Amino acid sequence: MIEIERKFLVTSSEYRNSAISKERIVQGFLNTDPERTVRVRIKERSGFLTVKGKSNATGTTRFEWEKEILVAEAEQLISLCKPVILKKTRYNVPYAGHLFEVDEFHGANEGLVIAEVELKSETEIFEKPSWLGIEITGDIRYYNSQLSKNPWSEYGFNVGNKP
Amino acid sequence: MIEIERKFLVTSSEYRNSAISKERIVQGFLNTDPERTVRVRIKERSGFLTVKGKSNATGTTRFEWEKEILVAEAEQLISLCKPVILKKTRYNVPYAGHLFEVDEFHGANEGLVIAEVELKSETEIFEKPSWLGIEITGDIRYYNSQLSKNPWSEYGFNVGNKP
Repeated sequence: MIEIERKFLVTSSEYRNSAISKERIVQGFLNTDPERTVRVRIKERSGFLTVKGKSNATGTTRFEWEKEILVAEAEQLISLCKPVILKKTRYNVPYAGHLFEVDEFHGANEGLVIAEVELKSETEIFEKPSWLGIEITGDIRYYNSQLSKNPWSEYGFNVGNKP
Repeated sequence: MIEIERKFLVTSSEYRNSAISKERIVQGFLNTDPERTVRVRIKERSGFLTVKGKSNATGTTRFEWEKEILVAEAEQLISLCKPVILKKTRYNVPYAGHLFEVDEFHGANEGLVIAEVELKSETEIFEKPSWLGIEITGDIRYYNSQLSKNPWSEYGFNVGNKP
């Protein structure tokens, strides 16, 4: 399927107050190439293998294929992944009819918070919550695959969104 | 699971006479890194996604994880793979209590024929059929992932096993 989403930095931790759920995510990459990213994820007690293709010019749409796998399988596959393994806490935050997924990164990306909103079309209008900062859709540095290679703390693109 | 196998070149096409079945295989690689190879395969009417890890020092054993997927999914994933897509015909050949998988490569690897035998242990003894040539276990050039990048015809390691 084609995934349509926009990504933003986050300017305060207010989103936590309106979150309806929170998940621990651990993920690694078998390939970080943006044209054929292969991600292994453990989200709470579920495992997933995901393949993502190249995004369009604006970075809004991207082919994505995902398969649920056993957590034990995901653990084995994560052990084959390139360093580093990403750890993050995801807050699911509904706002004005859209669901925002807000990821607080840990480890070498501690301090980085990214909000994503999935859309039905590239031109779909959505209301922005007050804690939404600058848009980073299509900025490859903020792809999770790239953050696993070039963490926020080391990469030097600290554009200041610490809540 | 851990896969234990040995690989050989093939010196004649005699194996065809004792084959019990024959399959068309089309496969691509989402990652050709020998430490985290990600393969997408269509074998006749079935699709598979396979992850392989690093092999041991002799190249005999290797972590392998495989999941069956829909052919339509495999086709989509193959379209994301790095060139070239490998095509081969596999002959399943039983010999003296072991099954030999003999792959005849097509396209840029036309003329290359590789036989593999899966073993229960690294030291398991097996009888060699007369058409079995030199052993290439652990020779990374003959990994399918590498043949997709550096085909036999172009790579210049023509060691002569044309049947």
